[in-house]
Amino acid sequence: MSMKDAPPLILASGSKTRANMLKNAGVCFDVVRPTVDEEALKADMLVGGASARVVADALAETKARTLSFSYPDAFVIGADQVLEKDGRIFSKADTKAEASETLKALSGGQHQLLSAVAVCQNGQTLWRHVESAKITVRPLEESFIAHYLDTLGDDAFWSVGCYQLEGLGAQLFTKVDGDYFTVLGLPLLPLLDFSRRHGLLPL
Amino acid sequence: MSMKDAPPLILASGSKTRANMLKNAGVCFDVVRPTVDEEALKADMLVGGASARVVADALAETKARTLSFSYPDAFVIGADQVLEKDGRIFSKADTKAEASETLKALSGGQHQLLSAVAVCQNGQTLWRHVESAKITVRPLEESFIAHYLDTLGDDAFWSVGCYQLEGLGAQLFTKVDGDYFTVLGLPLLPLLDFSRRHGLLPL
Repeated sequence: MSMKDAPPLILASGSKTRANMLKNAGVCFDVVRPTVDEEALKADMLVGGASARVVADALAETKARTLSFSYPDAFVIGADQVLEKDGRIFSKADTKAEASETLKALSGGQHQLLSAVAVCQNGQTLWRHVESAKITVRPLEESFIAHYLDTLGDDAFWSVGCYQLEGLGAQLFTKVDGDYFTVLGLPLLPLLDFSRRHGLLPL
Repeated sequence: MSMKDAPPLILASGSKTRANMLKNAGVCFDVVRPTVDEEALKADMLVGGASARVVADALAETKARTLSFSYPDAFVIGADQVLEKDGRIFSKADTKAEASETLKALSGGQHQLLSAVAVCQNGQTLWRHVESAKITVRPLEESFIAHYLDTLGDDAFWSVGCYQLEGLGAQLFTKVDGDYFTVLGLPLLPLLDFSRRHGLLPL
């Protein structure tokens, strides 16, 4: 359901989840992995005291803008998600031990997911948006965490919270306050609205 | 991730979406289609002035309880979803003309989804729960509705709102207020909590 004669749309993200969300919603686009060193940028911003919201927004924009110089006609979509709990900002786990530490830190409390999206064209930011979701995690036994990570395998390393809302992650939560797309890492509904206003989707 | 020595769990629903949600969350269960004539029950209740919430709750319980007599050891899960807008309760569309009429009625306003779940054992209701979600649909052009239904095909008849949140339905919405599982027709998080308290899932 996307349109002819509209500028090409590029998703500057290596995330399969984001690509699937857009594809399932009927959007036509290409995927180009951004070349930005996200972790370095994030670390610099955090040293400077940036909030979770500011970090997510800045990373989404940087990914989109950087790539947009190489594809000057295209609308380039950048996205980022940051997980924050009690002022601490989490990064994706690289090992099972790190994933276990993340889950222990999230156990028995509420954390926030900030999902940011930005659209750039030829170095200019045309639009940006940040949405948040609040997730309440039940108190998790150590034995549960071990069992959960064994069952999940490498899937634990895909998302910053080591969970998948639409999968086994549901066993972690008592409450999800925020829309599905925001939890999965892309504020899809505002992005579709932007797309309609720019002739990329039918009205 | 379900447990040995627990009573069997039966999902009394023909909905693939509900079965997938439970399966993806790591629950072991069997599916048995309920034999209750839902539409007749619903019609009788609506004639009597029952609210959307009461109808969803009663249908979920009736499906579970009726089946539970035939599987006396099992926990039987019943579920139902009702869509309500401005006091009108919608049923699933059977034809493209009906689906088009539903989408016109939902266009440019907010509707409510009531998702109910009940667990019965041997004719007794052990637990029940209703959650709601509010969905805002953007103003839809007639040409968009026609194009959308052409693209969706028979998938329009699966859900009462003729949409799928995780698919093309995203093009209809400007806001989704309520959790993913409730929108899809099963309050999964409270059901998983019930399951943990009854030894069906690890703590």
